[in-house]
Amino acid sequence: MIFTSSGAGYHSESKAKEYKHVCKRACQRAVDRLRAGGLALEAVTAALMELEDSPFTNAGTGSNLNLSGEIECDASIMDGKSLNYGAVGALSGENKSHLYFVSFLVGKGAEQWAISHGIPACPTEKMTTKFSLSGYKRNKRKMELAEQVETKRKRQLCGHENNSACLDTVGVVVVDREGNVAAAVSSGGLAMKHPGRVGQAAHYGCGCWAENARDVSLYSTAVSTSGSGEHLIRTMLARECSTAMQAENTHQALLEAMQNKFISSPFLAGEDCVLGGVIVLRCCTCGEAQRSEDIQALLVEFLWSHTTESMCVGYMSAQDSKARTHISRLPPGAVAGQSLAIEGGVCRLGTVSD
Amino acid sequence: MIFTSSGAGYHSESKAKEYKHVCKRACQRAVDRLRAGGLALEAVTAALMELEDSPFTNAGTGSNLNLSGEIECDASIMDGKSLNYGAVGALSGENKSHLYFVSFLVGKGAEQWAISHGIPACPTEKMTTKFSLSGYKRNKRKMELAEQVETKRKRQLCGHENNSACLDTVGVVVVDREGNVAAAVSSGGLAMKHPGRVGQAAHYGCGCWAENARDVSLYSTAVSTSGSGEHLIRTMLARECSTAMQAENTHQALLEAMQNKFISSPFLAGEDCVLGGVIVLRCCTCGEAQRSEDIQALLVEFLWSHTTESMCVGYMSAQDSKARTHISRLPPGAVAGQSLAIEGGVCRLGTVSD
Repeated sequence: MIFTSSGAGYHSESKAKEYKHVCKRACQRAVDRLRAGGLALEAVTAALMELEDSPFTNAGTGSNLNLSGEIECDASIMDGKSLNYGAVGALSGENKSHLYFVSFLVGKGAEQWAISHGIPACPTEKMTTKFSLSGYKRNKRKMELAEQVETKRKRQLCGHENNSACLDTVGVVVVDREGNVAAAVSSGGLAMKHPGRVGQAAHYGCGCWAENARDVSLYSTAVSTSGSGEHLIRTMLARECSTAMQAENTHQALLEAMQNKFISSPFLAGEDCVLGGVIVLRCCTCGEAQRSEDIQALLVEFLWSHTTESMCVGYMSAQDSKARTHISRLPPGAVAGQSLAIEGGVCRLGTVSD
Repeated sequence: MIFTSSGAGYHSESKAKEYKHVCKRACQRAVDRLRAGGLALEAVTAALMELEDSPFTNAGTGSNLNLSGEIECDASIMDGKSLNYGAVGALSGENKSHLYFVSFLVGKGAEQWAISHGIPACPTEKMTTKFSLSGYKRNKRKMELAEQVETKRKRQLCGHENNSACLDTVGVVVVDREGNVAAAVSSGGLAMKHPGRVGQAAHYGCGCWAENARDVSLYSTAVSTSGSGEHLIRTMLARECSTAMQAENTHQALLEAMQNKFISSPFLAGEDCVLGGVIVLRCCTCGEAQRSEDIQALLVEFLWSHTTESMCVGYMSAQDSKARTHISRLPPGAVAGQSLAIEGGVCRLGTVSD
C-alpha cells in the first residue's frame, strides 16, 4: 500500500485538481512496482520521482528558487527493513534518487559525487518552470518593496497566497506485501531561502522515518512530513510521530503528538503559528491471520494530520484499481498554525509470509 | 562548570600531553567567562573556539583534509535555555562561531552568508597545519596503494594508528551559575572524506544536545559526542543520552544508553565495531538548598563514556583554581568498538537565584 502527499500548505480550488492528479500518478507508479514484486524501498523511490518530476510540486522540477535564483533541493529516504538512511542537501539539479544511501552529502560535493558516478547534471534552467520563475520574480519585487517600507520579509513571503509555494514539499510512505515499510521526502525548500540552507527534508528524524517492527509486540511505522522546515526540524516530527504510533489508539496518539510535540512543543515556545503536516502509516500482522501459515493479512492504518490550511493526499493498495485522492482542509473557523485536522483509514491486505 | 573533550579516538602517550593542555586552556576560557557573569552559551562558545584554534584537534585549524585536499568543517551549538540550535556543515574556512543560530547552512552558501555579514574568510592554506597536510599525503599514498591491491579503503584509513586523526572532534558542555546548560561540538570530519559530506557535528540531536529542566521534577542536561559520524548519526546519540539522564542513577542510565542505544543499537545492526564517546552533564537545584531564597546550590553530575581506545577530557568549576584533565582508556583486554569505559564525578556549586 502506498500513501503520498503533495504537501501541506494552502491549496486553492483551482490548483487542487493538479495536486490530486500528481498524487494519483505517484500512487500508480508505486503500485506498479509492488505488483511486480518490488519491495517498499523501490516503490517509495518510484513514487517520489514521479512527485519530483511534476512542475506543480515544490520538489525536483519546479522547485522554489533561492535568493540567488537557483534551485537547491533537499531530500531523504529511509528503509524500515535495514534502517538505512540517506540524504542530500542544498543540491542543485541532479536526479536525487541516485544519491541516496551515500550518507549525507551537500552542495558542490554532492554534485561532484553524482558526476563521478555517471549521473548527468541537470542545470537550474531545466528544472525551473514558468511558475517557479514568476514566483521568484514576484517574491523578489516584494522583498525590494518590503525593504523600502521596512516591514518584515517573512510576513511578505509567507502570507496566505504564498503558503502553498512555501510549503508544498512531497512525501511518500509505503508498506509492501512482506510488511516492510519505507518513507521518503523531497523539497525545493523555502522560496527565497539563503543559498546553502538545508531544510527538514534532509534532516535525519525530521523529514521522514521508517522502522520495521523488531518483534511481534510492535508495529511497523513510516512517516513523512511537510511544512515549515524550522518547525519540523526543532521538533523532530517524523521520529516523534513514529514513536507515538506504538500506542494502542492511532488516532488519539497522532492527535496528542501533533498537539503536544508540535503545536505546543517546548522547542517552539514563542511561535504562535506552527505549520506542518504528516502522513503516517503503521501496520501489523492481523491476529486471526497468524494461524494460517501460507497467507497472512496485514492490517494497515494510515492517517494524515496538518496544521496548515490544507494538505493534499493520495493512497492506493495493490488490490485497488485506482488511487483515491483528497484535499484535507482545517475545520471551518480553525486557525492555521494553532489547530489541526486529522483523518485516516484502515485497510487489510493479503500478503505472503517470507 | 565546564566539561570539555578533545575527542574520542586513540591517544598515544606522546600526544596525550598536548590534548590535555588544549582541554585545560578551553576550560580556563570558559571559566573566565562564567566568572565575569557570562551565561552558559557564551562560555561554551569561548571554550569551543579555543579547541578549534588548536592545531592538534580535528576541528578548525588543523582539521583533517578531505579527498580534494580541502578543509570542510561541521559544527553545532545548542542553548538549553531557549532551546535554540544552529549548525554549519561542510564549511570551508570561516570562523564558525559567528555562524551559529542561522539554522543550518552548508558549503558555499554558508561562506556567502559569512562574507555578507563581515566575517572574514579563512582560506584552507591558513587552517592547514604541517600535521594535517602530512596526514593527508600519507592517506593519499595509502589510498593509491590500496587501490592497487584492491583492499578496502576503510581498513587502510581507520586502522589503529589513524583512529586519533579520524575521530578526535571536540566537544563542550557547560552549566552556568543560574543553572542554564549549553552544549557544542566541532569537527573537521573524517580524513579523506568525500567533499560535501556532513558528519554528526552538524546533525541535530546527534552532535550535541542541551535542555534546561522545564520543571522542578526534571534535570537540566547537556551532551556532546565524538567518534564515528555514521554511528553517532544513526543512533542520535546526543539526544538519547540526554533523555537517559532523566533517570535516577546517572551512571547506570548512561551505561545502559551506551550499551543498548549505541553498541547494540538496532540502527547499527551488522556493525561489529561501534566507535564513539560522550561527555554528559546534568544538574538540579539541591533539595536542602531550596529553603534559602538568596543563595541556592546546584548539584552537577558529569560523566564521560567511550567505546574508542581512549578519550581526553577536562573539567573545571568557577570555584577551582585550575582545570583537571584526564586521558580515559578502555579497561585492559577490552575491545574497542564492542566494550566501553565510563567514569564521572559530582560537584556542588554555589549559585544565584534569578
